[in-house]
Amino acid sequence: MPISGFPEWLPAQRMIEQRVIDRIRATFELYGFAPLETRSVEPLETLLSKGETSKEVYLLHRLQGDPGDAPSDDQLGLHFDLTVPFARYVVENAGKLVFPFRRYQIQKVWRGERPQEGRYREFLQADIDVVNRDNLPFHYDTEMPLVIGDALGGLPIPAARIQVNNRKVCEGFYRGLGLSDTDQVLRTVDKLDKIGPARVSELLVETAGASPAQASACLDLAAISAEDASFVDAVRKLGVADPLLDEGLEELVRVVETAREHAPGLVVAELKIARGLDYYTGTVYETQLRGYERFGSVCSGGRYDNLASSGKERFPGVGISIGVSRMLGVLFGQRALSVSRSVPTCVLVALPHEDQRVACDRIAASLRRRRIPTEVAPSAAKFGKQIQYADRRGIPYVWFPGSPDTVKDIRSGDQVPADAATWQPPADDLHPVVSGA
Amino acid sequence: MPISGFPEWLPAQRMIEQRVIDRIRATFELYGFAPLETRSVEPLETLLSKGETSKEVYLLHRLQGDPGDAPSDDQLGLHFDLTVPFARYVVENAGKLVFPFRRYQIQKVWRGERPQEGRYREFLQADIDVVNRDNLPFHYDTEMPLVIGDALGGLPIPAARIQVNNRKVCEGFYRGLGLSDTDQVLRTVDKLDKIGPARVSELLVETAGASPAQASACLDLAAISAEDASFVDAVRKLGVADPLLDEGLEELVRVVETAREHAPGLVVAELKIARGLDYYTGTVYETQLRGYERFGSVCSGGRYDNLASSGKERFPGVGISIGVSRMLGVLFGQRALSVSRSVPTCVLVALPHEDQRVACDRIAASLRRRRIPTEVAPSAAKFGKQIQYADRRGIPYVWFPGSPDTVKDIRSGDQVPADAATWQPPADDLHPVVSGA
Repeated sequence: MPISGFPEWLPAQRMIEQRVIDRIRATFELYGFAPLETRSVEPLETLLSKGETSKEVYLLHRLQGDPGDAPSDDQLGLHFDLTVPFARYVVENAGKLVFPFRRYQIQKVWRGERPQEGRYREFLQADIDVVNRDNLPFHYDTEMPLVIGDALGGLPIPAARIQVNNRKVCEGFYRGLGLSDTDQVLRTVDKLDKIGPARVSELLVETAGASPAQASACLDLAAISAEDASFVDAVRKLGVADPLLDEGLEELVRVVETAREHAPGLVVAELKIARGLDYYTGTVYETQLRGYERFGSVCSGGRYDNLASSGKERFPGVGISIGVSRMLGVLFGQRALSVSRSVPTCVLVALPHEDQRVACDRIAASLRRRRIPTEVAPSAAKFGKQIQYADRRGIPYVWFPGSPDTVKDIRSGDQVPADAATWQPPADDLHPVVSGA
Repeated sequence: MPISGFPEWLPAQRMIEQRVIDRIRATFELYGFAPLETRSVEPLETLLSKGETSKEVYLLHRLQGDPGDAPSDDQLGLHFDLTVPFARYVVENAGKLVFPFRRYQIQKVWRGERPQEGRYREFLQADIDVVNRDNLPFHYDTEMPLVIGDALGGLPIPAARIQVNNRKVCEGFYRGLGLSDTDQVLRTVDKLDKIGPARVSELLVETAGASPAQASACLDLAAISAEDASFVDAVRKLGVADPLLDEGLEELVRVVETAREHAPGLVVAELKIARGLDYYTGTVYETQLRGYERFGSVCSGGRYDNLASSGKERFPGVGISIGVSRMLGVLFGQRALSVSRSVPTCVLVALPHEDQRVACDRIAASLRRRRIPTEVAPSAAKFGKQIQYADRRGIPYVWFPGSPDTVKDIRSGDQVPADAATWQPPADDLHPVVSGA
């Protein structure tokens, strides 16, 4: 039986997912990010020390473990993201890594959400991060959206729009406004899309010590949005001054302007973006697919200056994470992606009689030697049934052994003589092709 | 801190692992296996109903779950292999799949081993299986070793030797010998390599109701090994007759002879191979790397006729699983694999001055457009330091913007004029290359 929150795709969907991952990974490598995987588990202490997601952790117990085992800090839990484990890995292996360290990581993560919420409890994330010792140059914050734009831009999906903000803008603004519990303000503003401005305003007054005028200014800031540096003027008009605000605005301008230079239309400064997790300290990213805005962010991240540290050593980082399962779940739900066949196979070698299996296997081996995905028919059924085997899977070619051999394109019906040592399918037919709706 | 049993590789090792997975996956697809992933968890009931590994299951608990939650059959545990979840998936989705269904699955699995045993508790498996409704033709049993031989044969690792046996041979032989608890005999013989023949013989007498002569015959059978059909004569000489034995011998001959035809030297009939798990019903496989026999099997599997069933429907299957983590752990431990660089990057674009970053990013974009993995230097340090950045990672080329641009092979010191729109590195330098010891 299906288990709520643990999605499983059908083979054709998994084929699409695999192509999507291939594209993402190839792009990450094109930008020089090295592959990394971390173990799926962390000590509970590590998981609880970062962010707000701690409440959703899955703990592990050995079925045959000691019955007296009580929950403890060194108990193991499944990681809920890839950033916290990565930060732990960097500190643990700092002596063996070269910095700045650019890595990508494509792995499952788990969140012990309440089943009734209908959210994923197991899902695939594809992350890139850059970390450095002591200080990380800001230009890496401007690179993240470009990599994502390149990765997603090569897929047959709606265009991505990356919304960028900077925690320093928000915190500086709130502080300049006279609000001291800036974390609480940020957490409240983060709920804007869920509960609306009126309720956010009330909550700011109730929980963050804001006056109605201060709450209103926070909402004014959150309403600012621009595809270029013009957001700076809009912020200035609100009449709040603070050095941290200035620093944040300058950084945000660099992200937006770099994207305008290299990928026009990709990035927008959106000053309501906050990101719930506690560990971000500067730039934050969220990403929507055009036409799918209502489904929320499919790619998020930000700058974290204090996530990884060990004694006096500090490893600031910036990263962004594509929610692969989330994105595909939405697109599958809208039937927005399809694939040209449900198997990798390009050629089915028909089997005239079971005693010719060795000869048919030789034909298949010859085609495979030239990297043409090939299967031999499961049994020496009537050729009509063998063609049906191919047709039901979308395999485009059926190969008939003979003198000479012939190969039939079962879509057009064309059948031509062919030699397994030299025949080549059109490039478009070699592998399954994913296309948009 | 490292957690015992949860291995983590360094970036260069992960790069090797990634190339190994790529080769395995490409081979699986070349043979027409479709990609599939199943969720990481199964109900405890599903996990406990199959095989002997149930005792090593990790159960999940939500950190914020109801405190009154008692362990129950619908409690979730992490899967301990990929075969049991696959069988469940096939039954669950039978109406949406086309049979025979060929799939590959490359995923982590978990076993709640006792920490002190020093065995992996999280590891990566790469499986292929074929399942069908009602009956599965035997020739699929002969295909499995060929796919594995092809996948591993393309890697710079010691040659694989696949040891094959057939449960029907063992069970038929034991039965023909007059032993009724054939499962217990099989489980005991399976311990041969661990505890030696004298102790196996004692155990057969103590726990399987065997006479010393019967125990001796079981050991004689287990001692038979051949790379061709000659093992049949050796079995016949032991003077035991049983119809199931005949059936098993005929099947085993087909596996060995098919491999001799298509991949000489790959497969050996080894009549001591039993496989601990309960669900195999015919052919069983284990695999050793030549020179690494002492490290045990890196690739195992077999035929299971009764694993997946639903009411009257039955889905027999055959499959084999490469223990990727296990294999790499052994090879890494022996320093038997290396990679030409620790990052995917082929070209580092040097940065003469920070205000030229936009121009350098344009050069990088131009190279990437032609699929050349490229990074831009992290800062406008002295060129010597920028070259060191490349050198420490094994990046072979440094690109210097100028009039004209030049590109330097930092291994040879050769520096030549180059145009980012047309320059191409030698094919061998484009991607990291994995090589053997």
